[in-house]
Amino acid sequence: MKKLINAPERAVEEALAGMARAHGDLLRVHFDPTFVVRADAPQPGKVGIVSGGGSGHEPMHAGFVGAGMLDAACPGAFFTSPTPDQMVAAAKAVDGGAGVLFIVKNYTGDVMNFEIAAEFCAAEGIQVESVIVNDDVAVQNSLYTAGRRGVGTTVLAEKICGAAAEEGQSLAQVAELCRAVNGNGRSMGMALTSCIVPAVGRPTFAIGEAEMEIGVGIHGEPGRERMMLQSADEITDILAATIFDDLPFQRGSQVIAMVNGMGGTPLVELYIVFRRLAELCDARGVIIARNLIGNYITSLEMAGCSITLLDVGDELLRLWDAPVRTAALHW
Amino acid sequence: MKKLINAPERAVEEALAGMARAHGDLLRVHFDPTFVVRADAPQPGKVGIVSGGGSGHEPMHAGFVGAGMLDAACPGAFFTSPTPDQMVAAAKAVDGGAGVLFIVKNYTGDVMNFEIAAEFCAAEGIQVESVIVNDDVAVQNSLYTAGRRGVGTTVLAEKICGAAAEEGQSLAQVAELCRAVNGNGRSMGMALTSCIVPAVGRPTFAIGEAEMEIGVGIHGEPGRERMMLQSADEITDILAATIFDDLPFQRGSQVIAMVNGMGGTPLVELYIVFRRLAELCDARGVIIARNLIGNYITSLEMAGCSITLLDVGDELLRLWDAPVRTAALHW
Repeated sequence: MKKLINAPERAVEEALAGMARAHGDLLRVHFDPTFVVRADAPQPGKVGIVSGGGSGHEPMHAGFVGAGMLDAACPGAFFTSPTPDQMVAAAKAVDGGAGVLFIVKNYTGDVMNFEIAAEFCAAEGIQVESVIVNDDVAVQNSLYTAGRRGVGTTVLAEKICGAAAEEGQSLAQVAELCRAVNGNGRSMGMALTSCIVPAVGRPTFAIGEAEMEIGVGIHGEPGRERMMLQSADEITDILAATIFDDLPFQRGSQVIAMVNGMGGTPLVELYIVFRRLAELCDARGVIIARNLIGNYITSLEMAGCSITLLDVGDELLRLWDAPVRTAALHW
Repeated sequence: MKKLINAPERAVEEALAGMARAHGDLLRVHFDPTFVVRADAPQPGKVGIVSGGGSGHEPMHAGFVGAGMLDAACPGAFFTSPTPDQMVAAAKAVDGGAGVLFIVKNYTGDVMNFEIAAEFCAAEGIQVESVIVNDDVAVQNSLYTAGRRGVGTTVLAEKICGAAAEEGQSLAQVAELCRAVNGNGRSMGMALTSCIVPAVGRPTFAIGEAEMEIGVGIHGEPGRERMMLQSADEITDILAATIFDDLPFQRGSQVIAMVNGMGGTPLVELYIVFRRLAELCDARGVIIARNLIGNYITSLEMAGCSITLLDVGDELLRLWDAPVRTAALHW
């Protein structure tokens, strides 16, 4: 295992210490329990938005903490859910009196722990709503999930809900918006290589030199099909067709299109995929109103990509375009 | 070789087509000769800034085209210099009457081709100044270079000179500024793995499962020393010590610190390196005034990182902080 780390068991904590040092203008890192919080939290009267999940998907979620996006992120160990005490501490730190939204990716551990945390918060008088993101069209059930997995749409939901909270929308409104984003977003990914979880020290899955995994999960969970490596255009066709088949993206629909790298994929390759995706959208009369191309929800150093399409109206686009100031998204 | 491409010989062109499609608000891509240019070029009365080099280092340079940074970028084939006709066409497209600055990384092919292009431009009445960036402290001569290689400081020079040009500084001033940035910037990199150039199809260099290459070049050129893999802190110590020894970063100096990923390194690892770098700066009384952590000058999917430190006064910081609107840097 070749990694730029000091010790597997200290890697998450040391990376967070690096983030704290690098982005002191945006965020603070609390340890024990561990969470990353906006430097200016709590914002009185603003809905606090909290997400979290296993580490290894950076920049998600800590890289999205800041004005216009998340108020706090709870990082677990690599590919391991954070614990309820982290979530409760984060909720307390960001509650400005307007309640807290938990954005939860659909993995059994995350869902359970965020549920427990919501109960604790309620007992302490903090109003919490939880929305589960389950946008991955690849498989119905998976290694760590009942139902569909939560993947790329999470990034878009965090940005859009962050903007809504920033402009003073209520907890009920922001939660409803998050459900709408989840309902209109679909994703699918693929992998060329496995990643290696630091504490494990060997690849999560074995894959041949000429194979790829279509529909892979962000923890290297098995997808739809192990097949021989195909061209970038053929791969894009498979991912996009599955997404298009799942939601009636109408002719004339506007979408936000994300081509996301899994961590070890060069940017040139992501642009090659985006180029083909744009051709496919053109052919269907689907309008790419905005795009996001790069590493946003990764799987350590896995090579591969995922595509997310989010059907948006003008209101969601307006919220997408609103200012954001985080380590990983900034405009 | 596992890559998300269609054909090695079309990969650069297809990626540029993807960029054109994704970033039509920022840039245009011209083919034959190939260059990427600001959507609003030429800017009358503004110095045009042109850079370029082999592809495979994305987002550099095309990802830095836009307001406040580069006016044009000339991408060559992977790890291969662009040709003078590309540079001349780019210079013509961006010349707003105030002349053009070529920012050239010190590789033999790039230097020669930018020199020829400058002569062509002069013959056509376009005033050109060229500045060579040679900030890599690892080795004195290298596989493709007489003298030091040009690496990470190039990114910082492009941002700072772009800001100066944007505010109306003259060609002589912007060129002088670029020389000052190069004089005050130092970098060094390391690799855990090789990359694979698409047209070659096999790793650029062989490296053992427990080895690393210290001082590697951005094309996988040999560095200072092949050694056994060490911890992130030990690696950071080696890179930083070599940089500190090369330039008298004084107690009380302000620096812009970049921890750059080579393409295949997860963000957590870069933050672990940054954390240690910050400790080393603290110990020397060197003040990290700004930082940049992520993939900015890469080597395809190589795993590894580089550190750049640029000694800056308040004027360079002001230019660093000025607005920038490109695909890869945006504030």
